[in-house]
Amino acid sequence: MSVVEPFDTVDLIHAKRDGAKLSTAQVSWLIDAYTRGYVGDEQMAAMAMAIFLNGMDRDEVRDLTLAMIGSGERMSFDGLSKKTTDKHSTGGVGDKITLPLAPLVASFGVAVPQLSGRGLGHTGGTLDKLESIKGWQADLSSDALQAQLESVGAVICAAGAALAPADKKLYALRDITGTVESIPLIASSIMSKKVAEGTSALVLDVKFGSGAFMQDPERSRKLAETMVALGTDAGVTTTALLTNMNVPLGLAIGNGNEVRESVEVLAGGGPADVVELTLALAREMLASAGQPDADVESALKDGRAMDTWRAMIAAQNGDPDAPLPVAKETHVVVAERDGILVEQQALPFGIAAWRLGAGRARMQDPVQHSAGVDLHAKPGDAVTKGQPLFTLSADEPARFARALEALEGAYRIGAKGDEVHDGGPLIADRITAN
Amino acid sequence: MSVVEPFDTVDLIHAKRDGAKLSTAQVSWLIDAYTRGYVGDEQMAAMAMAIFLNGMDRDEVRDLTLAMIGSGERMSFDGLSKKTTDKHSTGGVGDKITLPLAPLVASFGVAVPQLSGRGLGHTGGTLDKLESIKGWQADLSSDALQAQLESVGAVICAAGAALAPADKKLYALRDITGTVESIPLIASSIMSKKVAEGTSALVLDVKFGSGAFMQDPERSRKLAETMVALGTDAGVTTTALLTNMNVPLGLAIGNGNEVRESVEVLAGGGPADVVELTLALAREMLASAGQPDADVESALKDGRAMDTWRAMIAAQNGDPDAPLPVAKETHVVVAERDGILVEQQALPFGIAAWRLGAGRARMQDPVQHSAGVDLHAKPGDAVTKGQPLFTLSADEPARFARALEALEGAYRIGAKGDEVHDGGPLIADRITAN
Repeated sequence: MSVVEPFDTVDLIHAKRDGAKLSTAQVSWLIDAYTRGYVGDEQMAAMAMAIFLNGMDRDEVRDLTLAMIGSGERMSFDGLSKKTTDKHSTGGVGDKITLPLAPLVASFGVAVPQLSGRGLGHTGGTLDKLESIKGWQADLSSDALQAQLESVGAVICAAGAALAPADKKLYALRDITGTVESIPLIASSIMSKKVAEGTSALVLDVKFGSGAFMQDPERSRKLAETMVALGTDAGVTTTALLTNMNVPLGLAIGNGNEVRESVEVLAGGGPADVVELTLALAREMLASAGQPDADVESALKDGRAMDTWRAMIAAQNGDPDAPLPVAKETHVVVAERDGILVEQQALPFGIAAWRLGAGRARMQDPVQHSAGVDLHAKPGDAVTKGQPLFTLSADEPARFARALEALEGAYRIGAKGDEVHDGGPLIADRITAN
Repeated sequence: MSVVEPFDTVDLIHAKRDGAKLSTAQVSWLIDAYTRGYVGDEQMAAMAMAIFLNGMDRDEVRDLTLAMIGSGERMSFDGLSKKTTDKHSTGGVGDKITLPLAPLVASFGVAVPQLSGRGLGHTGGTLDKLESIKGWQADLSSDALQAQLESVGAVICAAGAALAPADKKLYALRDITGTVESIPLIASSIMSKKVAEGTSALVLDVKFGSGAFMQDPERSRKLAETMVALGTDAGVTTTALLTNMNVPLGLAIGNGNEVRESVEVLAGGGPADVVELTLALAREMLASAGQPDADVESALKDGRAMDTWRAMIAAQNGDPDAPLPVAKETHVVVAERDGILVEQQALPFGIAAWRLGAGRARMQDPVQHSAGVDLHAKPGDAVTKGQPLFTLSADEPARFARALEALEGAYRIGAKGDEVHDGGPLIADRITAN
């Protein structure tokens, strides 16, 4: 009880509130004191809002990241015989890329540890998707994780609670205090977890557009630059792709249907945008692991990536041959006239899938693995009157009304020659440390 | 449990964070929901920081004030046969003006209900000062308050907990979250209490300078203007004086010694600055109560104000003739050379008195009524080497060292003709509703 604290909490809040820079010692103390409960939630909430509105410079964000890493355990893959590389996406509607990507990269003899989370709100969670597969287990011991990386190469599993506990506490606080969309706070949150996970290389998929949590492309670029700098400062080879999330990624939005689409990609098919992004991220990851010339397309075509997928699912007690769950009810929406599909907004489709049961409102809620949306056309496609545009799936038909409400005005059929509102190319830019 | 809340807390935080204006319904709901605990402390802390950094316009501050008034009881003095007038000071070092002022104004047949507080940190509390008087009781029932206003006219007592409970909760939160010095939050806090107290006229003493909590004169002016507008909007005749708090007010800083100085003023003597401010505020209060030509100087000279003081103290079980407490130890600081006292900074002298025991660090701590500082010279006075400059008083001599530490560089003896750093005239301006 007689510990003398080196700083006064209110003094530090005043400093950030008034636009001053916090020192390494101050940031380090703040996070440690918050983790052990000396700094209260109400004090950290005021600090988070001051950071949101007044920002942090590169030194402060680095100090914040290091302090959150230091709040918990740090994993190490030094004992592996392979190089490790990791990918993180800031999340979007229909973003199932981790599923085909991890086995594809691992099929080149690289270790890919993807410590993942569950979904909340309209963005889905990688673990929720994989749990559509009969028997598949998200939780792995540290020993089992290492063994599977050595044998299979690819692992997608739940992140342990011991990694960056300060980040977990701060993230939960930001969620209820309106301080989520802050570049210093997002960047330090993501990068503290990724660095604590012990990877030696990292590729970031930073989304912008209506279905991304950071919609403005310039803010997304700034976030990407901040995270690349943080990774580099921490000794992790880090690059980022800036990618377009104005339109859902692929044709499937949900859980089981996203696994189905991922398997199509691993079989050499699948929607063009999912294939394009999977290949681009795979090339980045393999380049960061010393294989800049890897022929990733061939690995999809010749079954190597699929073999690794099957081994990865089986290693976590999943049955890769079991049928995926099917919803009890479906509702098809058709084109009201002939024309070109000129708009298909990501966010409303994400909300519709959530309302159908694919997502959860509270962390303790279950998700329905068969619920979701399947698209039958993408922006730019010609459609004819009466042709199915998308199918809603749910176990309870009562859910269709609220899902359709979310989709009002979310898609539009124009005339030939009308501008297609898809927000431009899928991959807008590549960000590196230089 | 099935109450449907009309707003989402995070939506309102986002709005203020992003610079939007909150509606009357939003502000009203926010304060009500915070008072009943639906909006959490961490959420209100983030909101308070967003208000601190992004401000509030006149409508929002009025709505906030009305919402805090509405959170509790509202007093009424409509049953009295007299007009009521009230004064509030934003607080400063040596500010004992309420003590001579309330009986002076009441001696003109006006009711002066001064619901007061205790000190925290370097600014003293009016109740702490009066508790130096043997037997004096701060707590009065509502009936006793009304009866004393009718019989004596002047009452200085503790504010009840039922007035503006939302303000009490929010003030305690702001204190630990670095969100005190915000004009919208200060103005609504002060004015919600004052309007709930039911006075029909109010005079504000708004301090600026090194010993005031708002040091910048322009920010103090803005605070005064905001509060005068709030009072006027609420139907209370409100004016403000902007007064200089660069130098301690009077010669006594503490508790018992401030009572002694107040009695000197009521006896027609006392330091010139205390007399000047007491008279100016008395004229304002009496003008607001319909007596613009009251001869307040005479009431100090002829004993009328003193008679009311004695009746006021006696009505609350105090003995106006009992000797005031005397400290066990004193330490005198003398002039090191001949010259002119050119500087005497209010804040360090306030901190010194606090460290001697006159103030408290936590609300539950006691204060020592005999502790404090007595000044023997004021800026502009000629002093000779060896002449006492000030005397420290405390019950424990161990306290002198830390008090003297606070006073290092706080006063300075210059040569004749050197500029005197007293921050200008005592009363800088008068702010009215027009």
